[in-house]
Parts: sequence; C-alpha cells; structure tokens
Amino acid sequence: MTRLIECVANFSEGRDRARVDRIAAAVASVPGAEVLDIHIDADHHRSVITFAGEPDPVAEAAVAAVGCAAELIDLRAHRGVHPRIGAADVVPFVPVEGVTLEECAAIAHRVGERIWHRHGIPVYFYEAAARVPERQRLEQVRHGGFEGLLEAAVTDSSRAPDVGGPALHPTAGAVVVGARKFLIAYNINLATGDLAVARAVAAAVRESSGGLKCVKAMGVLLASRNRAQVTMNLTDFEVTPVHRVFEAVREEAARRGVSIEGSEIIGLVPRRVLEMTAEYYLKVENFTPGVVLENRLAERPRGGAGA
Amino acid sequence: MTRLIECVANFSEGRDRARVDRIAAAVASVPGAEVLDIHIDADHHRSVITFAGEPDPVAEAAVAAVGCAAELIDLRAHRGVHPRIGAADVVPFVPVEGVTLEECAAIAHRVGERIWHRHGIPVYFYEAAARVPERQRLEQVRHGGFEGLLEAAVTDSSRAPDVGGPALHPTAGAVVVGARKFLIAYNINLATGDLAVARAVAAAVRESSGGLKCVKAMGVLLASRNRAQVTMNLTDFEVTPVHRVFEAVREEAARRGVSIEGSEIIGLVPRRVLEMTAEYYLKVENFTPGVVLENRLAERPRGGAGA
Repeated sequence: MTRLIECVANFSEGRDRARVDRIAAAVASVPGAEVLDIHIDADHHRSVITFAGEPDPVAEAAVAAVGCAAELIDLRAHRGVHPRIGAADVVPFVPVEGVTLEECAAIAHRVGERIWHRHGIPVYFYEAAARVPERQRLEQVRHGGFEGLLEAAVTDSSRAPDVGGPALHPTAGAVVVGARKFLIAYNINLATGDLAVARAVAAAVRESSGGLKCVKAMGVLLASRNRAQVTMNLTDFEVTPVHRVFEAVREEAARRGVSIEGSEIIGLVPRRVLEMTAEYYLKVENFTPGVVLENRLAERPRGGAGA
Repeated sequence: MTRLIECVANFSEGRDRARVDRIAAAVASVPGAEVLDIHIDADHHRSVITFAGEPDPVAEAAVAAVGCAAELIDLRAHRGVHPRIGAADVVPFVPVEGVTLEECAAIAHRVGERIWHRHGIPVYFYEAAARVPERQRLEQVRHGGFEGLLEAAVTDSSRAPDVGGPALHPTAGAVVVGARKFLIAYNINLATGDLAVARAVAAAVRESSGGLKCVKAMGVLLASRNRAQVTMNLTDFEVTPVHRVFEAVREEAARRGVSIEGSEIIGLVPRRVLEMTAEYYLKVENFTPGVVLENRLAERPRGGAGA
C-alpha cells in the first residue's frame, strides 16, 4: 500500500535563488523525500518548495528545511508584501495517497516538537493541526506579522506558541506547521472574450455564493488570448470532484450561450483525480484503483512473492 | 523515467493448481518481476500468468518460468481443448510505459535465445517479433499442435523453429515468444435486454465490419441481469482510445433509442488509459503525464537530488 504525503513549505526568501536552492537541497538530502517544484516570487520576497514521499522522510525533510532556512534568513532584514512570521513561514502537510488528514495533523505535531527541540524555533499549529479553534485560520495565527508577534507572543498568552517559546527566535521568528487537504488549482477557459460571463459562471459555482462545496472561483480575462476564464481552487476533490466542477461550469456557461474551450490544471494533481474522472465519464461499474496496472505493482513489496 | 513491460505467459497446465503456483513462484523469485494475476482454466487445461516490471527482470522471469514449466509439465500426457505446442506455450511481451513495441520484440528475441541455451527448448517468434511474415499469426505457428509439429519441425524446413531445434523438446515441445500491444478487455452494458441492439452496435463499432480500428466487438446477453452487452477487445488503445469507443457505442446505442447503463474493465489497464480519458473529457489543454503527482515522483531516482 502506497503511503504518500506532500509538504508545501513557504519560506521568506524570494530574491536570492542560491539560498532557496540550498533549502531545497536540504530537503533532497533526506532519502525518500523528493522535491517536485520550487516557486520563487521576488515581489512577495517569498518561495514555495513542494516535496513529497512517504510520511517519515517528508517529515524529516521538513525539519531539515526549517533549520536550513533559519541559518540563511534573517527576518529582521526581510521586507515583502506578504505577511509572515518566520524564515520558514508555513509548513503544511497534505495527504496524497493512503494517508488521512488526521495522520497528517499528527505528523505536523511531531514535526513541530522536533523543530523546537532541534532548532530552538517556536511553532504554531494551524488548520487541521490547530489545537485551539482560533488557530485554524492562518491569518489569525500570523496577525501582526513577525514584528508584531515578537512582543505579543510574550505579553499576550493567547498569542503564545503551541510549542516552545514564548519568545520568538530572534532572527527566524516562528513556524506555522499544519495539515490541510490537497488543493487543486483548476482553470476553465470559455469560448468568449466576455469577462461578465466568466464572472457570472464563477459566482454560480463557488461555495461562497451558494454553489459547490469546497470550490473557490473567480472570473478573469486572459488578455493575450481574449478569452474569459473561470479560475478556481478546489479545496477538497473528494467532496467536490473535478468532473463535477467541469460539468457545473459547462452547464452555467451553456445557459449563457457559451461553450468550454479547454481547461488547465495548474501544478500537480493526485492520480486519484484522473481515476475518478475516467470512472465517471466511462461509467465504469465497480471501479477500483486496482484495475490500473501501475497501482497494482505499487501495492506489492518489491521483489516479494507474487503468488 | 519509468520503463514497464508486461508478460502474459500461457502454460499447458490448468488442473493442478500447485504446479501453476510453482511456475508463478519461479517468476516471483526474480527481484523486480511481480505477478499480477494467475488465471487457471481446467476445461482448456491451460493457465495464464501475468507479470510485470522493468524489462530486464521480466525477461529473466520469463526464462525462469519456461524452465520451471518444462520440469513440471509433460506434453505427451496433456490433453485439452486449446491448441498448444509447448509446456510453456505462448510468451508475449507487452509495452506498458516508456518502452516501444520494437523494444519488446528485441526482448522477445533475447529471451528466445536464452530459453534455447539454458533449457534446450526451441523457440518460434510471432506477432511483432516474427522474423518471417507467415509467423505473425499465432494460429499459423501452432498449426498441427505439439503432436503434428514433432514431425513437421524436422521434416518441413518452413516449420523449423527460429531458434534451436529443429527437433522439438520431447516433453516440453517448443515455446512461441513474441511481442504485441497491450490488450484491453472492455464491456459496455446497455439499458436493454434486447440482444439485437447489442449485436447491431457491436457490428457498427468493430473494425471487421467497417467501424473503429483495433476494435473487436460482439453482442452478448447477460442473462442474470437481463442486459445486452457489447463485449470488446481493444488491441491498440493509442490508435483507438477507450473514450472514443465509449462515445461510438453511446452514439450507436442512442440511434436505437438505448442508453448506456455502465461499463466494465476486465483485468488491468495502463494508467495512461485513464489519463487519456480524463484529458479528453475535461478538455485539458497541454496535458502531460507530469501533472500527475505520482508520475512526477516515479520519474526521479529514489533519494536523488531533487533541486
């Protein structure tokens, strides 16, 4: 049985590529943890390193990356648009395959303890790993940023870290560690240049205005292609699968006389997403992931007896 | 880059489960070769062991299985409905991922040489591995069966083995080794008990009567469910993908006022099949297998530097 998690770690360094590469190298130095993507944003002075693998190596790689970031980044000299409280700022663990969200929360808690004991950096837990309801939302944990929290963490007991502290690390701040579901960034391009259509469709399908659960959507205009786009985040593809979103957008666009031209998956999706889609459209009865040859191979211990 | 092939090996033993298990154990004893399925047919007195992995271990496992079958099976005492010329009768190699049909033919040729040199059993090559056009079709290679070929292989030069011989092995006969495309067994159940509809749809979609290339189809009745079914073999899913077959059956059934109730994949399919399906129905622009997180992981050497 494959057990796979992802870690989407955010660091307060978006201008010095060499530093970000050194943090990624700390991740990759852990056997079994594999870097999938490095995204650097100079404006936000921030980077995101996405890595994945079995739970233990990914957890260990996260602890190593936090330590490396603390050595390289001095928050006192950091300025950027994005709110942040740490050199390694946010470290969420995400279930991909064969692992529950609850297990990812437990991993977050173990990683938090190790970060404090090994690197002396205090830790807050958020989203599914939050120990108090007020810390489920990242915005609340990070309120005031590094500069504000330097004092609040010590003087306001409601702002004290979950592990370590209460004083923040003087240069590395604190780390927000958590667990959340896999996020799919999915855009659908409409066969129109009319932004109003994309906005109306987005409003019809997103949860906040009464549409599909776990869907965030807005309408944008792709100026270079003169195409209106419904750009979406799907925050739980097991609650609302990609194919249901596609069909809802198709229907809402059709009501306005517009067809779908194409779609884009931004970043990565678990293979389960494509299996669910094929199962739905081909109406496969009794589908299991075991009908996929590669999945069947992955289930077996390498070189074990097959009979 | 994942390199994956499948071997669908047929043996002339379908009644003694223990013997078939011993042959499967010979496959599984090769690290990296994994048994996916064992199918035993007492009526045909025949079994099929499906195994997969990277090319080298699968090739080695095939040679080992042929040797094991020759030790356990004496064709002189074998009777069954099915035509056969060997204890290990037919051994095709099938590309699954990152391997071409031509490479599988080359694997078949190397395996044929090893079977002769290691076990003293002569080998014929068929389908994509055939060295002469007349041997592309299995029926022609096996014409006359073990009993007929015992003499013909020696007296008729056009029937001599491709490797070794010309005399067959006295108890194990000869092995037909080859390469072919992945075969998908796919059935679509119609929302009707009218067999005539399934037969008409099958006739409309199958290649032999002017339908889709690489599709074999017939209409059958599932008595237990009172449902007509279009039962199909798709012999090249890259030429005619599963979703195209589904849509053709849907259209032909709809012309007759019948809808599709569901479908079944019999056995296994490569993950590429589900990816192609999702790409088609979601109209994903610029889809690559690399958007699938698990595929991305598989591309990288385990524990290697990710950055």
